[in-house]
Formats: sequence, structure tokens, C-alpha cells
Amino acid sequence: MNDDCIFCKIAGGQLPAAVLYDDEMLIAIMDAFPATKGHVLIIPKAHAENLYDLPVETAAAILPLAQRIAIKMACTLKPDGLNIMQNNGKAAGQAVFHYHLHILPRYENDGVVFKSTPYLSTPEERAEIARQILQ
Amino acid sequence: MNDDCIFCKIAGGQLPAAVLYDDEMLIAIMDAFPATKGHVLIIPKAHAENLYDLPVETAAAILPLAQRIAIKMACTLKPDGLNIMQNNGKAAGQAVFHYHLHILPRYENDGVVFKSTPYLSTPEERAEIARQILQ
Repeated sequence: MNDDCIFCKIAGGQLPAAVLYDDEMLIAIMDAFPATKGHVLIIPKAHAENLYDLPVETAAAILPLAQRIAIKMACTLKPDGLNIMQNNGKAAGQAVFHYHLHILPRYENDGVVFKSTPYLSTPEERAEIARQILQ
Repeated sequence: MNDDCIFCKIAGGQLPAAVLYDDEMLIAIMDAFPATKGHVLIIPKAHAENLYDLPVETAAAILPLAQRIAIKMACTLKPDGLNIMQNNGKAAGQAVFHYHLHILPRYENDGVVFKSTPYLSTPEERAEIARQILQ
């Protein structure tokens, strides 16, 4: 529990949220600043800043829960698509420094834009980057 | 195995890739069209189109592997941040219809843009959407 952390307070019941799921390890809530209708966050109850700091058993539990919620969404909200997103670090868009996975239902013309410019690489450069990562 | 699927062919060794990790269930490769330096994909070997179709034991294995790779990246490539992304459906930007999780190291001024417009909701509306999803 981090006294300054809004997600610790939500997980501990000190702040309100629209709760979709709640067990000893994880809570799933409606994002209070949704980008689309049905924007959900999965939050580990124990404070961990990001993916690097997450206990491995928590990491293993998150996508199965995301899958269950996504399947429910597909049957009820019937979005046109769905993104799973999770941001680590300010440079990656992380705004609350307690790990949270976004489940973002997508709809035609919903105003969400993901853009990137190609990072040019050859097969040899990709093999070299793989070696760098694994060193 | 889907004969028309490029990721089935990579998983089966019929097409080349720069491989970071390989076990019976999952393969991790360098994205051949990287958005940033070190852009990696985690791909289940058994064909599943998207998150909805993934066996739960596969879903449970993906984030622990993503975490291991992200930690290696943090120590070697030293990015400024890191996004985890996974797209389901054309409306969500899915281009290859075999589940794949993006690990996207982020760097200052890397040209990656995520934008959205707020989907306005009140606490009551969020509680109602939660009820809709859980119905």
C-alpha cells in the first residue's frame, strides 16, 4: 500500500470506482477517464509500479482475466475491435505509476489514433538487436 | 497450423525470423516492420486469431514471458519507456489475424503517437456500463 497512490486507494476501497471484478490479487474497474465506451483497467492490488516490478504470479493472472472481460464485452457492448495496452514509464504514456492494463473496446470513428513511423531495419540488423537484448 | 498464416509459418520454421525465445507454446521474434528499435512480438505457436480464441494456459504464459523480455530490454537497449499492445480486429489495428503481443520499447521523439478523445461519462454511466458488461 502506497499512501500517495490513487490505485492503491481504489484497490483498498478508500476511493470509489465502478468495479467489474475483485479477488485477492486483482481488481478490474471502469476507467474514470475513458477513451471509449467500456474502457476497463485491470489493477493488481499490491503496489507495483510497472511490468518490471510485477510478481510473476500476478503477471500470469492478468491476461486470463482480460480475456474473460473481453469476451463479456464482445457479447454485450459488441465493439468493432479491442486493444489491450499497458504503458511503462512517462515516455510510454504512463500517467499513474501503479501497474494497470487497459482493455479498450474500439468502435468505428471512435477518435483513437495509434501512429508510428517505420524504424527501418534489415534482417541482419534485427538479428543484431536480438543478440543485444539477449546478451 | 493455418496454411495461409504468416505467423504459423514463422512458428513452424517455414519462414525466417530473428528469434528471441522459443518453447513448445510460444515464440518471440523481432517484428519485421518495427515501429521502434527492439520492437518484439510474442506469438503463440498454435493458431488463434485473437485474445478471444486463446487457450487460457497460453494467455497465462504470455505476460510472464513479456516481463522477462522487457527486463532484458531495460538492461540492454535502455529505452525511455515501453508499451505492451495487442490488437483484436481490424477496427483495433490488427493486421495479421494470428494473436500477437507487441513489446514496443519507447524512446524520446520516436514518432509513436497514441491519441484519443475523452469518452465522457459520469460515475452513474460507468456503473451502468459495468452492469451491461457483466450481464
